[in-house]
Formats: sequence, structure tokens, C-alpha cells
Amino acid sequence: MSAARVAIVGVGHVGGAAAFALTLASFADQLLLVDVDPKKRDAQVRDVSDAAYSSNSRTLVRAGTCREASQCDIIVITVGSKFALGQTTIELTYRNISIVQSLIKEMAPFQKDAVLIVVSNPVDLLATLVQQASGLPASQVIGSGTFLDSVRLRGMVTEYTKVPAKSIHLFVLGVHGEHQVVAWSRATIGSMPIDEALAKDNSVLDHQQLEKDYKNQSKEIIQAKGSMPFGIGTIITCLCSSIIFNKRNVLPVSHFQPRFGCYLSMPAAVGRRGIAQSFPILLDKDEDNRLSDSAKALKSNLDRISKF
Amino acid sequence: MSAARVAIVGVGHVGGAAAFALTLASFADQLLLVDVDPKKRDAQVRDVSDAAYSSNSRTLVRAGTCREASQCDIIVITVGSKFALGQTTIELTYRNISIVQSLIKEMAPFQKDAVLIVVSNPVDLLATLVQQASGLPASQVIGSGTFLDSVRLRGMVTEYTKVPAKSIHLFVLGVHGEHQVVAWSRATIGSMPIDEALAKDNSVLDHQQLEKDYKNQSKEIIQAKGSMPFGIGTIITCLCSSIIFNKRNVLPVSHFQPRFGCYLSMPAAVGRRGIAQSFPILLDKDEDNRLSDSAKALKSNLDRISKF
Amino acid sequence: MSAARVAIVGVGHVGGAAAFALTLASFADQLLLVDVDPKKRDAQVRDVSDAAYSSNSRTLVRAGTCREASQCDIIVITVGSKFALGQTTIELTYRNISIVQSLIKEMAPFQKDAVLIVVSNPVDLLATLVQQASGLPASQVIGSGTFLDSVRLRGMVTEYTKVPAKSIHLFVLGVHGEHQVVAWSRATIGSMPIDEALAKDNSVLDHQQLEKDYKNQSKEIIQAKGSMPFGIGTIITCLCSSIIFNKRNVLPVSHFQPRFGCYLSMPAAVGRRGIAQSFPILLDKDEDNRLSDSAKALKSNLDRISKF
Amino acid sequence: MSAARVAIVGVGHVGGAAAFALTLASFADQLLLVDVDPKKRDAQVRDVSDAAYSSNSRTLVRAGTCREASQCDIIVITVGSKFALGQTTIELTYRNISIVQSLIKEMAPFQKDAVLIVVSNPVDLLATLVQQASGLPASQVIGSGTFLDSVRLRGMVTEYTKVPAKSIHLFVLGVHGEHQVVAWSRATIGSMPIDEALAKDNSVLDHQQLEKDYKNQSKEIIQAKGSMPFGIGTIITCLCSSIIFNKRNVLPVSHFQPRFGCYLSMPAAVGRRGIAQSFPILLDKDEDNRLSDSAKALKSNLDRISKF
Repeated sequence: MSAARVAIVGVGHVGGAAAFALTLASFADQLLLVDVDPKKRDAQVRDVSDAAYSSNSRTLVRAGTCREASQCDIIVITVGSKFALGQTTIELTYRNISIVQSLIKEMAPFQKDAVLIVVSNPVDLLATLVQQASGLPASQVIGSGTFLDSVRLRGMVTEYTKVPAKSIHLFVLGVHGEHQVVAWSRATIGSMPIDEALAKDNSVLDHQQLEKDYKNQSKEIIQAKGSMPFGIGTIITCLCSSIIFNKRNVLPVSHFQPRFGCYLSMPAAVGRRGIAQSFPILLDKDEDNRLSDSAKALKSNLDRISKF
Repeated sequence: MSAARVAIVGVGHVGGAAAFALTLASFADQLLLVDVDPKKRDAQVRDVSDAAYSSNSRTLVRAGTCREASQCDIIVITVGSKFALGQTTIELTYRNISIVQSLIKEMAPFQKDAVLIVVSNPVDLLATLVQQASGLPASQVIGSGTFLDSVRLRGMVTEYTKVPAKSIHLFVLGVHGEHQVVAWSRATIGSMPIDEALAKDNSVLDHQQLEKDYKNQSKEIIQAKGSMPFGIGTIITCLCSSIIFNKRNVLPVSHFQPRFGCYLSMPAAVGRRGIAQSFPILLDKDEDNRLSDSAKALKSNLDRISKF
Repeated sequence: MSAARVAIVGVGHVGGAAAFALTLASFADQLLLVDVDPKKRDAQVRDVSDAAYSSNSRTLVRAGTCREASQCDIIVITVGSKFALGQTTIELTYRNISIVQSLIKEMAPFQKDAVLIVVSNPVDLLATLVQQASGLPASQVIGSGTFLDSVRLRGMVTEYTKVPAKSIHLFVLGVHGEHQVVAWSRATIGSMPIDEALAKDNSVLDHQQLEKDYKNQSKEIIQAKGSMPFGIGTIITCLCSSIIFNKRNVLPVSHFQPRFGCYLSMPAAVGRRGIAQSFPILLDKDEDNRLSDSAKALKSNLDRISKF
Repeated sequence: MSAARVAIVGVGHVGGAAAFALTLASFADQLLLVDVDPKKRDAQVRDVSDAAYSSNSRTLVRAGTCREASQCDIIVITVGSKFALGQTTIELTYRNISIVQSLIKEMAPFQKDAVLIVVSNPVDLLATLVQQASGLPASQVIGSGTFLDSVRLRGMVTEYTKVPAKSIHLFVLGVHGEHQVVAWSRATIGSMPIDEALAKDNSVLDHQQLEKDYKNQSKEIIQAKGSMPFGIGTIITCLCSSIIFNKRNVLPVSHFQPRFGCYLSMPAAVGRRGIAQSFPILLDKDEDNRLSDSAKALKSNLDRISKF
């Protein structure tokens, strides 16, 4: 019955929204905000504290250092998470690699049961590198991966079918970004294959159109707002809740894939020690080929980087 | 933004536990308790009111009449719900038919948007009769059916697999009781067929043993406690929440099946007007045969009763 | 971030309702049910487990022994809690003393941070004895005391004034039972003395009538139901939540009063280690005399018992 | 049991955070976002929708017009709410008056049961004008007033005393801004006057220092973040919840004061029709003089404006 402590490293728009949502959810005892800019960090601490007192949240929000963060139960790394899906240029990639690796160096060694959540982009690449540098077992480092993409796509199917998102079992998988794969072949409503379930009402899902639309959404949000903090902030809260309460929810998150030697998103049960069990989906041939190709491309990128 | 009113008709152990759980859930504005025994009813009103004030629930609990109940948004009929699964003798059946039909007569006409939830046993038979007597469209009369059986079986699979119940998509269907059917052929974890998902870890579900065990549970609870109020009370709360908040959750509840001309359990989206959409599962041949046989037996019972 | 474990010792009507409410509240990781009757205990475990799976609660419910209970974070003792307020005969008192003391002997030694909640009646007397026998500091043994009486009385004032119970700051204090004292002299609405606040609307609270009515309620519930499990079950849940989440809510609970050398109810902040801080109210002269008299009577009873 | 619809007019940082918090709270059926900038509005709709699907919220978020907003159950006006406490220059005041009045013109006539929440600054002045222009009864127009100031100050007292904010009954009242008044003379913990309660532990609250500190917080947050969206967003959510669920919570909000002929903050029970009952606190002489002076200054400002 000890206290649950969460740290957020990087409290710009994404980290701030995550701190806000976590505080409203009220399940952590302590929330540590860490940032290179102390003024921004302190303003976030105060604003989020106001939210805590207004909502009667039990979460105590305070400013912290990298070293303090590494002793928390969960550490969320949001640095460089602003840009997403197809927006990650090579320069940005190298900049984020360098920032994230120096952060890990400053934080290490971690508390031995700590779970790291990597939100920074490109998420699969960075999660792989963070795990290697952290000294933690692979099961304790998770990337946010295609979790937001999956819920967004389910949301669009919900709008089309009027079935609530939580009864739509549909996963976006693989390497987050241009080459992620929608597992249409395994999608179900209730316990029925999704296309069968809809055919009954003479209704048809246009897979390609839906994929195009949901990718467009990211671009439009980022063009207008510069980031999409609320969606990602909620995803982070959801992951922290599954970890702290040991819920073992099956979620599409980036985790280590022995088959490919790198991180990418597959369904996995997430609990108190991070990845409790992986549930790799058997995709159909075309889906599997596309996933495999993007995994190999990521792996060769990683090999190039590690040669530096 | 008008008030949400729920009535519970019959506040013995099952109705009382439902009233308690609904009050803790705090989503109804008013909760009306109705019973033939005014002393029992008033004691329940007071005890549940204590729970309301202790938990800061916004639900106002009060005693009501059958006529007032019929003007509520949801009416839960728990009379005779005490016995379940294989315990329903012919005498009990005829006694419950007679009680429930006279109750409906006393309540009718119902508010035109009312949703009725029938919990009394035998549930599929009574739900069919209630719907006919109520003057309400079939979509607005729901039987609790195999909902509790489904969550109980998922619970047992959870204990075996350590995957949380909500990631296990497994339905018990058909006519509630000895002949209900477990839809093993359509069961999934994540988006994987359940047996495939477990085989990966060299783990095997013994379907028959599980079915036997979960049926035994009912019997043992009823032998020791005389009823199983907490499970059913929670199921009722879950249904009311899906209705009031128009959640359209896909749940295994008893509703009208045009294919058979009677009520039995199939997955359906439950929303503000009751059954929003049915999602009949395509079972495998053996499962379908068993379901079909029990549906036909129920139908011929119904035909016999209606000849009276 | 370790697991939160709660044990309930005695799972009749009151313990069962507490287990049900705790499970719906979903904040404990484990809930241990203990009872001398293993059949009753196992039926409660199964029925409450059904509620857990139906409501998607994260609480794992299981049967346990007294020794296992004593290693939990919170141990709730409900044995003999069925009768309340003015119903506690001398025979019952001596029976409960003997049961509770042998229970404590079986459980001791307790985990050193354990918090005990005594619900059994007569609650102040038993809580004093339990604390002495437990080997735990006084701050870690709490009696449910006048908590339910306070919320019930606030509920009645709410019904009269239409102000929500949580904005009515009104405490029933002292020795639970016939001689408990309503702190009318310190009652407020918003930040205004209650009588002043109501006078503004030409409204008057009849203190005596209200006191009479709320005492009557207990009697009527018990006459009709034999116990008032929902109210007490909710109070227990509320206390457990304040302890596990270290909320430090200021609640009217029975705790050690150095002024009198025994337990009685006064407002106190309840947190992870039990009583975090006592907030004795300065009553007016008449209220204080009555409280003092009943405390002295309890103390002399305790002295007589300890001479045995 | 009809749908609850909330509109937010102005979805910059404050309106966006309010939309996010409302969506996570999941109590509205529909949330309408309105803004002069359609790109910003649509990006907020999408980002908040992502949060809705990720958190399994039942709230449907969509873009709307002023006319649609005025038909909702609650309309939150956040335009010009960015600056606060002592930052409201004369130019800004006149700009906001003009924007808000043209907004009201565009929206009117309102649905007859609509409740308006004015967050824009200077809040008491604008709430008075909005009410006059809206055609709605005074009870249906509320200003956020000193609600955030009250919770922030309670938060600081909590940090000092370790008593949870919700057991500290302390109100900041009057005209929001430089001249608002802290009702120290009526502050209580439990049911004890706050200074008495603390004196017991030889602890003293430095009223002046606390007032200075909490005013400084606003300035520092605004300097670093440009706005304090999370605190205000949570306050808005809290008000909407008290309205939709008819909670009648007693909250320090700006509402019409017949004594002064204008809006200022006093405790009031907030329910489905807005202000259900006002609970004016009897302040001590000095507090009352200061409140009265600022009210008169506001009134003469209003008279000057209405002569235009």
C-alpha cells in the first residue's frame, strides 16, 4: 500500500496535457514534473495543482529533477513528442535520439521496478534505444506506438457504424508512421468479423478511405494546433492506469519483438511490471508482409545508428 | 437534460442489492422502490438512502407504487429472480408467470419511452410474455438472460489465463438455464481466437470443465446464501448505465429473435431505447444446433402457455 | 506502488455489503473474506467475485484466514455489528467482547502498519479493547462510531433544506448509542452557522424532532431487515478509501481521547496510518456536559471489564 | 432522461482545456465547440474526440455555431478569459465587453432553461452585462468569479496544515480581482473556526502572506504559460457537473446580488437551473466594508457603461 509516483519528463503541450489528465484521474499519489525550462515547469506545476484542488484529486503535483524522476514507479518521456505520423524528418530524428539518450544517461540508474513509457517520436526507434540504454528489462520499457491510431480508427468506425468504440476490436499495428498496418483481417464487433457483422445490415466499410481519413486527421490537428496533446495525454493516462492498477488491459503498444529484434506495436497485456504478456496477432499474408517490411527497415536503421 | 428515473419492482435480496449498486453508481436522479410488503420496502428505502448520503450519491431514493414505476425511464422487474440456472421448477414457473403478468397489468400503460428489464426467472419465457403484455415495442423489453453467466465464465478464463476479463470476448448465449450455449467457436483474446492465443503459450482451455465449474458456482452460492444478489445487482446496474447514458455497449442479453419467435440471449447494443442493434453471432454447426433446439423448446412452451 | 489489501472479518449481512461496495469501488487490489462459517464465506467470495467481473472491478476477491487477514493493510471487524443504536443488551455486549477478543488473539501479531476498523457494537467499548489487545498504536485502530449517524442526520437536514449533504457541516459525536451528542452549536452551511443560514429564509430546524426521527430510523430498518448493511457497508468503504488513498478526510469516527481515557467519536483526519490528526470540536456547555457524562460512564464500564 | 448538451464558445487554451476536462468527466452527451476561427475549432474537435475515444468517454464532440450553442443546456463563454486577476486593462475590458455583447446578440434567443457560465474577464462586470442582454433570469447566468481563487487558497492552506482541501471551508468572495475579499472570519476546519483549530497545535496561519502568495501564483503562471487553462478548465467542469446532475453544491460563484445591483461572488447552491439558493456569508466589519466598496465601484462602472 505504498504511494504510486509518476514522473513526466518534458512538460510542453503533450506533457502538460498528460499531467492534467493524470491529475483529474486522481490515481497517482505523486506526480513529478521535469523540464529543462524551470519557469515553464513551475507554471505547469501550479496550473495542474489548481486542477488538483478544484477536482478534489488526491494527486500531489510537484517539480522534480531527472534523478528524482528515475526513482518513480512510472516515467513518461514526452520530449520531442510534438510531431507525429509522417512528420518525423531525419533532422528531427537525430535531434530526438540525442536528447533522449542524454536524458536516459542523466536519469540512470532507474529504480529496478520502474516502467518507462516512451512517447517521443519516432517512437519505435527511440523506445528500442531507450530500453538498451536504461538497463531495464525489455518488459519495463513501453512505447505509445499505435495506441492513439487504434483508438482514433475505432472512433471513425464508431461514427460510421454507431457501435461504441469499445465493442470494436480493431488494431493498428507495426511501426508507427507511414507504414503502420491496420489488422482488418482480425477486426471484430461483438465476436463477429467486422465485415460480416456489417454486411448483415448491407453496410460496407471502405477500409482504404478510413485509413486515409484517419491519417489526415493527425496532419490537420498538427497544422492548426501545432500538436495533439489531448489525445496523447489521454493515452498516457490510460497506460499509467493499466500499470498502477495492474489491470493487464490488452493494448496496442510498442514493445520488443524477438521476431524482428526491435520495438513495434502489437497487442499486449499491460500491468504493474510493464508488458505482462504479448498477444501477437496472426495477420493475413498481405498485412504480415507489410508489417515485416517496415520492421526490417526499422531494424536496419537501428543497426546503422548503433554503429555510430 | 431531464431527470433519469429508475424503478425496481421487488426489493428482496436481488432488488435490494440492485438498489444499493445503482445508488453507489450515482447516475440516476431518482430511484423508486416498489414492493408488496410496505415495511420491507420502507426499510430498503432507508438503508439505501443511508448509502446515498454516505457515498455522496446524487440519487434520491424513495418508495413508490406500481403506477409510478410505470412512468419511470427504466423499470426493473426482479420479482421471483431469486432462483436461477436449473432451479426453476414448473410450479415456480407458473407462480412467477402469474405474479409477473398481474404486475404488468397493474403498471400498464407504460410511459412510451420506458425500457423494461426482466430479471425474474425463467427469464426468456417471462421476458417474452412481459413484452406481449406491456404494449411496448420489443426493443424496449430486455431480459438479463445470460449476461451474468457470460461475465462469470470470462472471470474463470481470466483466473486461468491472467488476461483481464474485459479483453476476453466470450459469450454465453441462447436460452438461460441448462441448455444455454457457450460460443467457444467465436471466442477471442485481443483479436485472436482464444485457443490460438493460448496455444502460443502451450496452454489449453478445457471447455467442458469450465462450463461445468461455472454452472456449479450458481448452485453453491444459492445453497449457501439463498440467492446471488451481488452478481445480479451489478448486472442490472450495468444495463441501466448502458441505457441511461446511451452507451450502446454490446452485451449478451435476452431480446426478441425473429428467427425463433421468442426471446433468448444474443449480443446486442443496448442504448437509450433498449436494444439499439442485435449482433447475432454465427455459431459453428454444433453450437447452432443446440441453441436452435432450446429455442424451439421454449417456443413450444410459450405456445402452450398462450393457449390457456 | 505495492498492492492494497483489505480483509473483512465476518461476512454476514454487514460484512457482505461492505465487500460488495468495496469491490464496486475498485480501489483495493485484494479483498480477503474471513468467516467462521466456510460455506457462507465461499458463497460470499463467489457472489462478490461475480460483481467484480460484472463491473470490471480490479479487486481480486478471495477467502482467507485470520492470520492472513492480520497481514493486510486494513482489517475490518464486523462480527456482531448487526445490532446498533440502543439495541445492545448486556448479554450481547459480553458475547461480542468475548468473540472480538478471541479474534484479535487469533490474528495477532498484526502487520506493523495495519489499520483496524472496528464496526462491532458497542463500538467505542470494543474499539478501546481491540486497541489494547492488538499491540498497535492507538492511531491505527478506528471505530466506525457516529459516522453513519452523522451522514444520516445530514441527510435529513438535506431533505428539509434542499442543501446537499456535503455542504452541511454537522457532526454527531461522543459515545455511539443513546447518549451520542449532536453538535448543533457548531453546525454550518457554506460557512454560516446553520440556524442563521436558514433564518434568512424564515426556516427553522427543529433539533429535537430531527434527533428523534433519525434515531427512529435505525430501529425501523432493523425491525424490518434485521440489519442495515447498505449504510454501514458504505461507511466502511468510505473509511477504507480515505486510508488507502491517504485522503486525510475529516470524519466523525471513534478514536482514542486522552481527555477521557477511552474511545469515542470526534472529527479526525483519516489517512494511510489511520488517525492522522484529531479535530476535537469545542462544544457548547450543555453539549459538552452530556458528552463528558457518557464518556465517564463508558470509562467506568471499561474499568470494570478490565478487572475481570 | 433526455441528452445533456454543453457548448463552449471560444476554444483557445481555456476553452480547449475545459473541453478536454469535460470529455474526460464523461457526463455530457454532446459537447459543442464554437469559435470564430474554424480551423482552430476543428482541430480542437478532433483532438478532444481522440481523448473521448481513448478514455471511453460517452461525450460526442462536434463543431457548432452560435445559434446551435444557444439551444444547449449549458453555454460556457470563455472568450477573453485568458487574462486574469489584476491583468485586466481598460482596453481589454472594452474589447471584451464588445466581443461578448455581440456574441450574445448572435446567440439570442436562448433555450428557456439554458444556464450561461461566463468565464471572460472582468468576470463580474461581464456576467452582469451578459445577464441583461441574454433575456434569461438572473439565476440562469453564473460567473466563474472567485471559485478558482477559493480552491487555490484552500490548496495553500492544505499544504500548510496537511488537512485536505475539502475539509477546509474557506471562501474568497466579492469582486474578482485586486479587491476580492478572503472570508477569514468565517473559515472553518471540521466544524471549528480555522484559527482555533490550528492554535490547538500551536500553529498559526499568516493570512496576509497567504493572500499575497496566492495572488502571485496567477501572475507567475500567466507570465510563463500565457494563460492558466487547467485550473479554469477544471472549475468549468465542476460547475457543469453541479448543474447537469443538479447537485446543488455550495460554491463561491459570481451571481446577482440585490444588495448591490450587480454580480459578485458569494456562496450559492448551484443546480439544474443555475443558482438554486444564495448563501450570503455574514462577514466581519472590515471584510464587509472592503467587499461593499468594491461592489459600489463595480456598480458605478456598470452605470457608466450602460449610459453609452
